[in-house]
Amino acid sequence: MNDGTVSNFTNLRAGAAGTLLLSRSDVERLLTPDACMAAVEEAFRQHALGKAPPPGILSLHAKDGGFHIKAAILTLDRPYFAAKTNANFPQNGPRHGLPTIQGVVVLCDAVTGQPLAVMDSMSITALRTAAATAAAAKYLARTDSRAALISGCGDQAPAQLRALLGVRCPARIYAYDQDAEKALMFAAALGAETGLPITTVSDLARAVAESDIVITCTTARGYFITREMVQPGTFVAGVGADNENKQELDPALLAASKLVTDLTEQCAVIGDLHHALAAGAMTRSGVHAELGEIVAGLKPARTTEEETIIFDSTGTALQDVAAAAAVYGRAVEGGERTAFSFNA
Amino acid sequence: MNDGTVSNFTNLRAGAAGTLLLSRSDVERLLTPDACMAAVEEAFRQHALGKAPPPGILSLHAKDGGFHIKAAILTLDRPYFAAKTNANFPQNGPRHGLPTIQGVVVLCDAVTGQPLAVMDSMSITALRTAAATAAAAKYLARTDSRAALISGCGDQAPAQLRALLGVRCPARIYAYDQDAEKALMFAAALGAETGLPITTVSDLARAVAESDIVITCTTARGYFITREMVQPGTFVAGVGADNENKQELDPALLAASKLVTDLTEQCAVIGDLHHALAAGAMTRSGVHAELGEIVAGLKPARTTEEETIIFDSTGTALQDVAAAAAVYGRAVEGGERTAFSFNA
Repeated sequence: MNDGTVSNFTNLRAGAAGTLLLSRSDVERLLTPDACMAAVEEAFRQHALGKAPPPGILSLHAKDGGFHIKAAILTLDRPYFAAKTNANFPQNGPRHGLPTIQGVVVLCDAVTGQPLAVMDSMSITALRTAAATAAAAKYLARTDSRAALISGCGDQAPAQLRALLGVRCPARIYAYDQDAEKALMFAAALGAETGLPITTVSDLARAVAESDIVITCTTARGYFITREMVQPGTFVAGVGADNENKQELDPALLAASKLVTDLTEQCAVIGDLHHALAAGAMTRSGVHAELGEIVAGLKPARTTEEETIIFDSTGTALQDVAAAAAVYGRAVEGGERTAFSFNA
Repeated sequence: MNDGTVSNFTNLRAGAAGTLLLSRSDVERLLTPDACMAAVEEAFRQHALGKAPPPGILSLHAKDGGFHIKAAILTLDRPYFAAKTNANFPQNGPRHGLPTIQGVVVLCDAVTGQPLAVMDSMSITALRTAAATAAAAKYLARTDSRAALISGCGDQAPAQLRALLGVRCPARIYAYDQDAEKALMFAAALGAETGLPITTVSDLARAVAESDIVITCTTARGYFITREMVQPGTFVAGVGADNENKQELDPALLAASKLVTDLTEQCAVIGDLHHALAAGAMTRSGVHAELGEIVAGLKPARTTEEETIIFDSTGTALQDVAAAAAVYGRAVEGGERTAFSFNA
């Protein structure tokens, strides 16, 4: 820091000006999975009740990737606005030794427009995505679920497992990845963290059959969880598919199950639902509910122990603003004071 | 700052990780009007030559205002992406003692997606808007312009005058505002800064008639510069109108003049052109050129001393990314080191 700029750093007091700066580790330290889930549930509830204005998306394509902006307004303890800019450059790892996804979330007060915080977007994305899975599992997975499978042990996997453990208590966790090394590292790290035995598996079909909860968080471009693998009563969360080329779940599985989406319109374009529709396996009227309708009590959640329920998760800016606002609230409560006065 | 977060501040070295943080005063100190104009000219030139991908806009409405995101990609010394989030809350002053417009620009490398800098958006907006006026004046105002009028002495006015003085040398400057106090303050401050005599005026029509260059930067919602006021040979830059309700220039003035837009499509929706079209005073085919076409030499600039030329300025994200990249370049050259590692 030099003399010219250091004065713009503020030791934030209550009500003082300045925009909080929060890194990935700050976000992960401040936002518990439970608090994130509560905020995300509220976002879905408001969406279902027509209380949240529709979120917006803006994408620009670069030569080797793209920039994706998701923005929304949501009223929690007060009205918030958040705009998340995610850069997605798939060749970053091999070419530049950088993460595929990088970015920041700008959180503003939606009464005055003041920029409240700028924070890492990757941690927000992982936490809010996992929070949606956990909220779905809370309403849609059997309460006596004893085994859970995490399929895909990349960046999303730890947050998915942590959030799930807030709503269900499986005694056995299975971890699967095409890259066995990744599954081993995940099992070791999360086993140590949670104190639960995590077993890596190579026989995916068998692991699916033995699991009451299946979470897929991969970058697959073709389905690998088939209808035949899944036993009655299972809850399956398809988390990976978030563009029109990605797919994890068999169209026949979606057609044969009770299907809940995060946003049906969006899932019909970029989710696993998109592929089930394209394959002619089902129509949009075959969707049971959006998650918000379940949370708000407008549509029934699980009604029998035998029904297989799928959650098609594609992600919305409403989750981002919910998670970012929750982080901000914790940061202010906890006295975080690393801030920068952009308008100084 | 507490122990948990202070470690995320980086003393940036060449190539080191971290996102530069730049406040309003940093931006104003680092980015000279000339450097900004060169970058903005290049942005318009690339737009005219079809080398810049189309910029994007996303707006969300809040109860007392709105959030406007403008994003674009532009290749200068390297490819850059910028997303500007501006909160616009017109009641902020009286209600909360806050500026009407607040926000930040997120600048990224468009090869890897890395967030290079987060900076104040108000200073970027003022500088890039003034740079477009100056670029237009460079090609469209008479070289012997001796008097210039700044009409509207708000936040935009100082940057407009500073940028203009980089391309023309008027011996007399007039300042007009509905609020005479504002004009006096502007005249005193900019007079001291530039060493030029700045005269406040209350007779707008007379000041317009005596000026070779007229810049309007107000929030007017009806035109106040009429065709009758403007002498042949004048260059008029209409800078204030940037939404469909704002208007500064008489439709008859536009119809009778050589009209240059920043982006014709956009001016036809939110610029003074919009009102001239709506009034039936002219058609779109009456637009002489976009600024980029003039800069790139695809269309003629001023060809006679007598022609009156209007520049209709509405603002584009291409200007934002040009200005933000220019600031960033200066900051890196100058050894600015105030940075935050969001992904730490």
